[in-house]
Amino acid sequence: MKNNLRVGIVGATGYVGMELVKLLCGRQNISLTSLVSHSYAGEKYSSVYPAFTGIVDKKLSTLDKDELSSDCDLVITALPHGISAKLVPDLLKSGLRVIDHSGDFRYRDASVYESAYQLKHPRPDLLSEAVYGLPELYRRQIAQASLVANPGCYPTCSILGLMPALKHKLINSSGIIIDAVSGVSGAGRKADLSFSFCETAENFKAYAITGHRHTSEIEQEAALLAGEKELYLTFTPHLAPLKRGMLATIYADLQPGVTLNCVHEAYMDIYADEPFVRILAKGQLPETRHLNGSNFCHIACAADERTGKLKILSAIDNLGKGAAAQAVQSLNLMAGLPESEGLGSLVVPL
Amino acid sequence: MKNNLRVGIVGATGYVGMELVKLLCGRQNISLTSLVSHSYAGEKYSSVYPAFTGIVDKKLSTLDKDELSSDCDLVITALPHGISAKLVPDLLKSGLRVIDHSGDFRYRDASVYESAYQLKHPRPDLLSEAVYGLPELYRRQIAQASLVANPGCYPTCSILGLMPALKHKLINSSGIIIDAVSGVSGAGRKADLSFSFCETAENFKAYAITGHRHTSEIEQEAALLAGEKELYLTFTPHLAPLKRGMLATIYADLQPGVTLNCVHEAYMDIYADEPFVRILAKGQLPETRHLNGSNFCHIACAADERTGKLKILSAIDNLGKGAAAQAVQSLNLMAGLPESEGLGSLVVPL
Amino acid sequence: MKNNLRVGIVGATGYVGMELVKLLCGRQNISLTSLVSHSYAGEKYSSVYPAFTGIVDKKLSTLDKDELSSDCDLVITALPHGISAKLVPDLLKSGLRVIDHSGDFRYRDASVYESAYQLKHPRPDLLSEAVYGLPELYRRQIAQASLVANPGCYPTCSILGLMPALKHKLINSSGIIIDAVSGVSGAGRKADLSFSFCETAENFKAYAITGHRHTSEIEQEAALLAGEKELYLTFTPHLAPLKRGMLATIYADLQPGVTLNCVHEAYMDIYADEPFVRILAKGQLPETRHLNGSNFCHIACAADERTGKLKILSAIDNLGKGAAAQAVQSLNLMAGLPESEGLGSLVVPL
Amino acid sequence: MKNNLRVGIVGATGYVGMELVKLLCGRQNISLTSLVSHSYAGEKYSSVYPAFTGIVDKKLSTLDKDELSSDCDLVITALPHGISAKLVPDLLKSGLRVIDHSGDFRYRDASVYESAYQLKHPRPDLLSEAVYGLPELYRRQIAQASLVANPGCYPTCSILGLMPALKHKLINSSGIIIDAVSGVSGAGRKADLSFSFCETAENFKAYAITGHRHTSEIEQEAALLAGEKELYLTFTPHLAPLKRGMLATIYADLQPGVTLNCVHEAYMDIYADEPFVRILAKGQLPETRHLNGSNFCHIACAADERTGKLKILSAIDNLGKGAAAQAVQSLNLMAGLPESEGLGSLVVPL
Repeated sequence: MKNNLRVGIVGATGYVGMELVKLLCGRQNISLTSLVSHSYAGEKYSSVYPAFTGIVDKKLSTLDKDELSSDCDLVITALPHGISAKLVPDLLKSGLRVIDHSGDFRYRDASVYESAYQLKHPRPDLLSEAVYGLPELYRRQIAQASLVANPGCYPTCSILGLMPALKHKLINSSGIIIDAVSGVSGAGRKADLSFSFCETAENFKAYAITGHRHTSEIEQEAALLAGEKELYLTFTPHLAPLKRGMLATIYADLQPGVTLNCVHEAYMDIYADEPFVRILAKGQLPETRHLNGSNFCHIACAADERTGKLKILSAIDNLGKGAAAQAVQSLNLMAGLPESEGLGSLVVPL
Repeated sequence: MKNNLRVGIVGATGYVGMELVKLLCGRQNISLTSLVSHSYAGEKYSSVYPAFTGIVDKKLSTLDKDELSSDCDLVITALPHGISAKLVPDLLKSGLRVIDHSGDFRYRDASVYESAYQLKHPRPDLLSEAVYGLPELYRRQIAQASLVANPGCYPTCSILGLMPALKHKLINSSGIIIDAVSGVSGAGRKADLSFSFCETAENFKAYAITGHRHTSEIEQEAALLAGEKELYLTFTPHLAPLKRGMLATIYADLQPGVTLNCVHEAYMDIYADEPFVRILAKGQLPETRHLNGSNFCHIACAADERTGKLKILSAIDNLGKGAAAQAVQSLNLMAGLPESEGLGSLVVPL
Repeated sequence: MKNNLRVGIVGATGYVGMELVKLLCGRQNISLTSLVSHSYAGEKYSSVYPAFTGIVDKKLSTLDKDELSSDCDLVITALPHGISAKLVPDLLKSGLRVIDHSGDFRYRDASVYESAYQLKHPRPDLLSEAVYGLPELYRRQIAQASLVANPGCYPTCSILGLMPALKHKLINSSGIIIDAVSGVSGAGRKADLSFSFCETAENFKAYAITGHRHTSEIEQEAALLAGEKELYLTFTPHLAPLKRGMLATIYADLQPGVTLNCVHEAYMDIYADEPFVRILAKGQLPETRHLNGSNFCHIACAADERTGKLKILSAIDNLGKGAAAQAVQSLNLMAGLPESEGLGSLVVPL
Repeated sequence: MKNNLRVGIVGATGYVGMELVKLLCGRQNISLTSLVSHSYAGEKYSSVYPAFTGIVDKKLSTLDKDELSSDCDLVITALPHGISAKLVPDLLKSGLRVIDHSGDFRYRDASVYESAYQLKHPRPDLLSEAVYGLPELYRRQIAQASLVANPGCYPTCSILGLMPALKHKLINSSGIIIDAVSGVSGAGRKADLSFSFCETAENFKAYAITGHRHTSEIEQEAALLAGEKELYLTFTPHLAPLKRGMLATIYADLQPGVTLNCVHEAYMDIYADEPFVRILAKGQLPETRHLNGSNFCHIACAADERTGKLKILSAIDNLGKGAAAQAVQSLNLMAGLPESEGLGSLVVPL
C-alpha cells in the first residue's frame, strides 16, 4: 500500500461510523478522504457531532462508487446486512480493499447465512475470498485480504473467551452456554421507542432468546476451533442500561482432570503476545467500564468443582473491540502498519 | 391474632425496611407500633425519608426487646445475618411472631448454613421450627408459623422459575445453570465505594462467581422440589446499573420428549391460582421495569431444539417479591388476612 | 354527577395516559369506560403495558365521539396541542365534561396562545369558559367547570413556587428568573433520536432557551397573582437524564425589608391547608426522587443577603403534579369526591 | 526546564489524580516519576484502575517530601483544601514547581479564603506568589509560576462564560445569577451514602444553595474582569445523575443598546485564538456529553429582548477543563511545551 492510506467510510454518522472517524481522524499516514452518509449528506461532520468541531469539519457525501474508487484505497462499510452485500462487490471490483461491518461476508457457508438472516445471498462466490476479521485467529490472512468481514460484537466477545478452551480441548464442545449482555449502542443510532431513554433506563431484559443471528456466527468459529464439523451452543443476549459495553458469561463442562490452573495457564499462554487481550489476575473480574472506548478484551475464568463447570467471563466495548476498533486493527494489518497504531489511547473507567 | 395487628420493624431505615414501612403504613387493621433503627434512633422517620412527611412521622427507636414484646404482635427483622440469629430467639421467647429477612433461619441443615455463611449457628434447634417464607411452596405452614425465614432475592426469583419444571420432572435436575442480574439496592443502603454512582453507572459486571451464599439456598429448595437428596447447580450473580430489579436466565436440559408446549402448560397449570406469578404469553419476555415496586414474578420459557436446552426467564423486584413485599404476603397469611391485601397497588414501568 | 363516574381517556397509551390509567383503574366509584389510542386501537391495554396484566385488560378503541358521549360522563384528553382544540368543543357540545392536557385552553387571551403556539385558535370563545386546572388557585371554579385546562408541568412547578411571594408582594415582580430541569418523560412516548438512551444518558443540556411556550403560561398566572396587567420573566428549561422529575430554581429580588423568615411564614401560611404542597423544614431541599409517582410539590426558600435575591426551589413529578395526578385532583373536585382520593399512595425514593 | 520533565502526582488515585495519570502517562518528554496515594500505597496503579494494566503498573508510594524533591521537577497536588496548604510550602521550598488542585492558593485575599473555607490560612504570604491557573486569563504568568492554583470547576465554567461580557462591559456587573449543574465525580472518589447509586440515579437536586465556596472564587475573578473592587453574584450548584459534566446557565442584565450580535461578536473575537474555547454557532447549544474527557469549553449566548436578560450557557467536563486537563494545559505552559500537547485526543459523545 502507499505511504498515505486514503480511507473512505460508508455509514459515517452511525455509532460505528463515528467511532471509526474518531480512531482514524488523527492518524498519520491515513487520510479520511470520503465520509458517506445517507441521512446527513451535505452537512459538515462536526455539525452532526459537535465534539469534532475544528477537527473533522469535512462535508458528508452521498454514496458514489466512482468517487470512492478514485478517492480511496480502502473503504470501511458500516451498513445494515443485505445493503452491504449489494455494495461491496462493486467496491471490490473497482480495486478497493474493503472492511465490512455487516454479517454479509462473515460466513463460510451461504446456506447458514441465508437461514440466519432470512435473505438470499447475492454473491456467495465472494464468501471464500472474505476473511473473518478476528486478528487473534486470522492475522496473516487479514493482512493479505481484499475483503475483511469484521466480526459481530457478541461473536468477538464469545470467541475470544472460548478460544483457548476449545483449541486445547479443555472443555466439552457440546453443551456450551453463552449468556451475554450488551449496551444500547449495539442497536445502532436510530429513532426507536424500544431504545428511548424512558423505556431503557432502569430496565434489564433478555431479547431474541431463540435464533439470534450471532449464534450461527459463533458456532461457525467455535466448530473450527474445536476441529469439529458441527457445533451447537446456546446463546442468550440481554440488554442493560449502558451506552457501551458487553459481557459474556460462558458456561462449559470441564473435561475430566482439567483444573482451573490448567485453564489459566492455557489462556495466559495463548494470549501471551496478543496486544489486546488481557487475562486478568486471579480474583479480578472484568467490568465493562474498564473497556469502554478501547480495543481490549478482558477475560477471567473460574471453575465450579461441585458441578464440573468452567465459567469464562469475557468483556469488551461493543463499539470498540466489538466493532470499530477491531476494524482499525485489521486496517493496520492490511496496510502493513503496526497492529496497535492508533489504538493505544487510554480510556478510563469514568 | 387480634383484630388490629401491631407490627414492629427492626432495621426500619434500610431499603428493605423502608419498603416494608411503605407497604404497611397505610394498611387498615395494621399498626406500625415500633420502628427500630440503630443509625437514626431519635429521628423522625420522615426526616430520613422525606416522602413520608405527614404520613409516617413516628420517631425511630433503639432496639429494646421488652418494648417490642409489649408493643408488638409480630416483628419483622431486616438485619444482617448473624445479627438476626442472636436477636430472633429472644423475640420468639417473649411470644412474638417473627418474619426474618436474613439468611439465618432459611436452612434445614445447620451445617449447610455454617459452610455458606462461615458462621457457627447459635440456635440450630430453631431451624426445624422456622418456615421458609415462599408462599407458593409453603403457604399453609407460613400461616401457622411463629418464625418465617423470608427467602433471599436470588432464591425467590430462581425457585419460582424452576419449580414447575423440577416438580414435573421436565428437566434434568443435574447441570442447571442460573445466570442472574440484580439491581444495586440488593447491596443495601450503605456508604460503599463499590456502589457509588461513579463506579456503578455505565458498568456491568459479575461478582462472587464462586460460592455466592444464595447458591446453597437455591439448591436446598430445588432438591426438595426434585425429590432428591442432593442437587448441585451453577449460579452466577451480576450487577447492573439499576436501582431495583432482578432477572434470572435459567438453563436446563429438557428431558427426552418434553416439548415447549408441555412446559408452558405445566407452568400455566401450577401457577394458575397464584396471585403473584404471571406466566407471560408466548412471545413476551419479562423486563425488570414492569415489576419494580410490585410483588409479582414474571416468567417466560423458551426451548432451543438444536441443543435440547430449556431457557427459563424469571423476573422480580429484588426489594418487592425478593424481600419486603414477599414478607408482607407472609404476614397476611400469618394474620389470617387476604393474602394480597396491601400488595395490589399498581406500579408502572416508568 | 352520578354515583359511579364513567371516565374516558383519549390518548391512553402515552405516558400521561398511562399514569391516568394507573391512578384511576383501582378507584371505587370510577369506571374507565373508554380508553382511546390512535396507535394501539384493537389491542389490550395490558399488551402495551404488561404491568397492567389482569388489572386493565380492556381493549383500546379508536376515537368515536358518539361512543364517548354515550359511554362517559367525563373525558380526559391527553393529546398534542392543536388536536385538542379540534376535538374538545365537540365533546363539550355532547354534554361531556372535559379535562384537557394540552395548551389549547390554558390561555385567557387567544392572541397570547396564538403567538406562543403559532396556531390560529379555532374556538377562542371557549377560553372564557375554561378553568385553569391548578386547584391551589382555582379550586372552586374547577369544581363547577365543564372544561378544565390542566396546567403545563413547568407552569405548575413555577407558579406553586412563586405564588405566596407574588401574592404577598415579597418580591419584585419584574426580573424573575426561572431555571428549570425536566426528566425525559416530559417529551412524551415516542421514537425520537434526541430522546434515545444513547443520546440522553450521561448528558445535560438546556433547550428552547428563548420562547419556550410555557413562558407565556407562567407569565399569565404570575401577572394575575401579582395583580399586574403584564409581567415578563425569564425562563430556561433543561433536560436531565431522569425518567421523571422536575425542579425549578427561581430567582427574584426581595422587596426591601423582607427577610427569609417573612418568606417562610408566608409560604407556611398560604399552603397550610393544601393537601399536596409541602414547605420543607429549614435546611431541607427538594429532591426529585422524593416526588416521583406522587401529586406532591416540595418547596424550599433561601435568601442571599449579599445580593438581595430570594431563591425558591420547587419540585414535582412532571407526570404527577405536573400532569396526570393533578388532573385526577381536578377530577375529584369536579365529581364532588374528596380532593385527595386515589392520590395518597405512597411513593418511595428508590 | 529539562528535556524530560519529571512529574509527581500526590493524590494519584482520586478521580482527578486518575485523569492526570491518563493524560500524562503516554506523553513524550514527560515521566510520571512519583505517584503518591495515602489509601493505596504499595499497590500497583493498575490494580486500582485495571484499565491501566500494562500501561501504568508503577507502584503507588506514601508521601515522602524528600523523595518527591529528588525524583520530580514538578508536582501536581490533588488533595483536599487545608491539606494542600500544609504540604505545598515545603514542596516549593525544596525547589519544586507545583500545580495545586485545592482552593488553598486561589485567593488574593487570605480573609476571603478564611471566610469561605472556615480555616486559618497557614501561609498567606504565598498567595501573592501563586498564579490562578486559568490560561485564558493568566497565560503569561502561569508560564513563569512556581505555584499554580488550578481553578475550581464551577469557577472555570462560570468565568469563561462571563469573561467577554464583563471585560467589554456588555452586562451589568451587578445582579448576575449563575445556575450550575455538576456530575457526581465532582464530589470525588469516596464511600458516601449521598453519592451512592441508589440515592443519586434518577434524582436531581440543588445543594449548598447559600455560601458555596466557589461563589467567592468566581466573584474574585469576575470583579477583576469588570474592573471593580467588589462584585457580588448569586450562585446555585445542582447535582445531576451524570458521572462527569458541568453546565452553567448564567443570567445578566444587558447594558442598554447591547444586542445579541454585539455579544456574539465579542465572544468570537476574544476567544478567536483560544485552543480550548469554542463559541457555538447560533442555534447550537452546549451539551455536557460533547465535552466529556476533553479540555474544551463550549459557550452559547441568547438574549431575551422582552426582559433585557442575557443568557450565557457554558459547559465543560468537570474533571477535564474543570480539573485535570486544565492542570495539564498549565503544565505545558510552565514547561515551555506546546499548550495543547497531549490534550487533543478526541472524545466522542457516547
